[in-house]
Amino acid sequence: MTDNNSAAPGNSGAATGNSSAALQTALAYHRAWTNHDFEQAMTYIADDIICQAPAGRLAGAAAFRGFMGPFTQILTSSRLIAAFGDDTTAVLIYDTDTVPVKDAPGAECLTVTHGKISHMRIIFDRAPFDAARRAPA
Amino acid sequence: MTDNNSAAPGNSGAATGNSSAALQTALAYHRAWTNHDFEQAMTYIADDIICQAPAGRLAGAAAFRGFMGPFTQILTSSRLIAAFGDDTTAVLIYDTDTVPVKDAPGAECLTVTHGKISHMRIIFDRAPFDAARRAPA
Repeated sequence: MTDNNSAAPGNSGAATGNSSAALQTALAYHRAWTNHDFEQAMTYIADDIICQAPAGRLAGAAAFRGFMGPFTQILTSSRLIAAFGDDTTAVLIYDTDTVPVKDAPGAECLTVTHGKISHMRIIFDRAPFDAARRAPA
Repeated sequence: MTDNNSAAPGNSGAATGNSSAALQTALAYHRAWTNHDFEQAMTYIADDIICQAPAGRLAGAAAFRGFMGPFTQILTSSRLIAAFGDDTTAVLIYDTDTVPVKDAPGAECLTVTHGKISHMRIIFDRAPFDAARRAPA
């Protein structure tokens, strides 16, 4: 459904489990940032969001913006792989291509409170990004 | 529900979306390996499984065993964070503690065919494992 900029062959689209409130918020957030509208994406982020990212815990929307904003600027394409949720929790799994790293999948477990994402655990592999940084220009 | 060896404070347990067939298989697999019964876990793996892991594509149960078996041997505890699924797809997000790395979360998107896991995309951060390998003993 939000299978934007699809690049992967042989995949028939994302598995989306239901249309729960948390999932709708999560998908609206996801659609916004993957379509390069990060300001729209931020409207779904609670001011007091806690984000557990690979590099550590980020507290508050400003810290979250500093983590996620730069990533959206290196995004070249994305594809939603699976999306499920219930009243309060949503899970998204997606693939991205970025300028330094192709095929950089991510997973998010999101808690939605009063229509805003109040907690996010985001999982991705930092290793290829570290390698790209170390590589000669 | 499979909140085994829980160690994280302040968390009220895993969000589990429904009781679909794919999810039941995924949870049975997950319970087995997190309870250190890897041979039981392998009974849920299709002979021709394709696993997309951070280091690349693994084809077949033997390759999958070579990847996942050693990981289960360094596992010290785990906690299921979220689990959702539909008829054919399940998504699991969990945290693990391992001998070299504490707080090593993972995410899996599983396709289940005829009761066996035929495709797995597994996402985790290799960076802390790489760092632990490089650290002096």
